[in-house]
Amino acid sequence: MNIRKAVITAAGRSQRTIPLQTLVDRDGVEKKALEIIVEEAIRCDIEEVCVIVAPGDQTAYLEAAGPYGPQLHFVEQVEPRGYAHALFQAKKFTDNQPFLHLVGDHVYTSQGKLRSAQQLVEVAKREACSVSAVQPTRENMLPFYGTVAARRVPGLNDLYEIENVLEKPTPSEAEQSLLVPGLRAGYYLCLFGMHVLTPVVMQLLEKKLTDLPPGQTPSLSPILAELVEQERFLAMEMKGRRYNLGVKYGLLNAQLALALEGADRENVLTQLVELLAQRGG
Amino acid sequence: MNIRKAVITAAGRSQRTIPLQTLVDRDGVEKKALEIIVEEAIRCDIEEVCVIVAPGDQTAYLEAAGPYGPQLHFVEQVEPRGYAHALFQAKKFTDNQPFLHLVGDHVYTSQGKLRSAQQLVEVAKREACSVSAVQPTRENMLPFYGTVAARRVPGLNDLYEIENVLEKPTPSEAEQSLLVPGLRAGYYLCLFGMHVLTPVVMQLLEKKLTDLPPGQTPSLSPILAELVEQERFLAMEMKGRRYNLGVKYGLLNAQLALALEGADRENVLTQLVELLAQRGG
Repeated sequence: MNIRKAVITAAGRSQRTIPLQTLVDRDGVEKKALEIIVEEAIRCDIEEVCVIVAPGDQTAYLEAAGPYGPQLHFVEQVEPRGYAHALFQAKKFTDNQPFLHLVGDHVYTSQGKLRSAQQLVEVAKREACSVSAVQPTRENMLPFYGTVAARRVPGLNDLYEIENVLEKPTPSEAEQSLLVPGLRAGYYLCLFGMHVLTPVVMQLLEKKLTDLPPGQTPSLSPILAELVEQERFLAMEMKGRRYNLGVKYGLLNAQLALALEGADRENVLTQLVELLAQRGG
Repeated sequence: MNIRKAVITAAGRSQRTIPLQTLVDRDGVEKKALEIIVEEAIRCDIEEVCVIVAPGDQTAYLEAAGPYGPQLHFVEQVEPRGYAHALFQAKKFTDNQPFLHLVGDHVYTSQGKLRSAQQLVEVAKREACSVSAVQPTRENMLPFYGTVAARRVPGLNDLYEIENVLEKPTPSEAEQSLLVPGLRAGYYLCLFGMHVLTPVVMQLLEKKLTDLPPGQTPSLSPILAELVEQERFLAMEMKGRRYNLGVKYGLLNAQLALALEGADRENVLTQLVELLAQRGG
C-alpha cells in the first residue's frame, strides 16, 4: 500500500488560532504549531498535504506552514458541521487513495528514532489496511477521546484488531464493551489523533453525511466502527505521547515535552530550576 | 498629573504574531498575549489604548484583545522604521497628554497587590513627571536592553533620577558611565519596557525623525537621553519581572511564571513533576 497524501483537519471554529501558536520544536527551532504538524506528515514521505480550514484562514495558515507552503492544498469547510464532516472535505483531494490523517490541534513526541507518524505509516504499508494510532489511557480521560474495543494480534507487538469504536464512552460503557485483555487495570485504548485510512472511509462518511439531517455534526468514531464491518482495521499502540494544544495549559505541556525531548533539554531544565528558585525567594 | 491614555507598540515586522499567542493568565483564564498587555494598562484606570500595528494586522489584533476591543484605537506604522518611529505614530492619539507606554511583546509579573503598571502610574501621578520602569539586570544581558545612568532619590525607595540612557551598551561603556551606587556588583538598571512619558517625548521624537535620513530607524533610548536635558525624569526599580515573549522559549518562561504566580499554581506544579517523571521513565 502506497501512502502519498495526508489530510490535516483544522477547521474547528473555536480552535482557529491553535495552528498559529509558536512552539520551539525538538530541533530547537521556533515554528508555528501547523509547521510542526505538517512536518510530522512530510517525514513519512508524504508528497501532498491537504489542510481543512475554516473560511478565511488560508492566508495566515499558509504563512504559518513555513517552508511547506508549496506542498499544501487548502480546502474550506464552509459550514461548521464538525470533525467528521471536515475530514470528508478532503474526498476529492484523497482521490480514492489511502491517506495519513492528523488532527490540527495535537503535537506528538515519540520514543525511538522514528516519529510517531512514521511508525504508523510503516505498519499501514506493511499490513495494507487502515491503522489508527491508540494509546493506553486512564479511565478518567475517556470523556475526551474515541475509544476502541480490540484484541491483540498474535505475534505482532503493539498491534490490535479493532472490533468496535465508541466516541467518548462513559466508564460503564467502557467497562462493558471496551476492556482490552493485557492492558493495565483502568486503562483503555483511546485514539491518538493519527490514522492511516483507506478510501472506504470517505465512502462511509459520504453515506453518513447524506443520511443525517443537516444540523447534525457526526464524529469520526461511528464511521470507524462501520469500517470494522467492511475491512480489516488495526490499532497500533504508540510509544510516544500526544499533546492536545486546545486544552488549558496544553501549549505549556507540549512545549515542555518537546523541549525535554530535544536539543535544548539541558538549557530548559536550567531555566526551569531558576524560575522555581525565584519563586521561592 | 492625570494619565488616561496608553500606547502599546506592536508593529515590529518580525514579531507580528506575538500578540496573537495564547497564554493562561494568573486568573487561570486563557487569553491572547495582547489581551494580557491591554489589561495591564486598563487596570491603571486608563480609558483609551492605542495599539501601533503593522499594516493589515488590525482585524486579528482586535479579535485577540477580547473584551477590550471598544477601548482600542489602531494606528498603522506604514513604513518599518523601528520602535521609536512606531511610538511616534501615537502623537495624534496622545494629544499633548502624558501617557503610559507598554511594549507589545512583554508580559509582567509583580510582587504585592498592585500590578507593575499600576505601581508605575501611581508614582508618575504623584511625582508629576516621566518615569521609566527599570530592573537591576546582570551585565551579560546588556546587549538586549536600554540602560540608564542614575542616582537614588534620597528618601524615596526604589526611585532614581535618570542622568543618561544608553541603548544596548557594551560592558565597558556600562562600566564607565552606567554604574549605579547601591546596586549589586555587575548589575545595571535596564529598561523594563514600561514607561509613563510626557508630551515632550513626542516633540523630541518628531525632531529626531525629521532630522534623520529616511533609512534610519532610531531607538527610544537616545530620545530618553534627550528628555533628561529637558525635564525631571525618574526611573522606578520594579519588584516584578518582565518576560520577553519574542525570544526563544520566551512564551514558555512567561507561561510558567504566570502559572506559578497564579490561581493554578498547584496544578501546574503537579503537571510539571509528572512530565519530568515520564521523561525519567
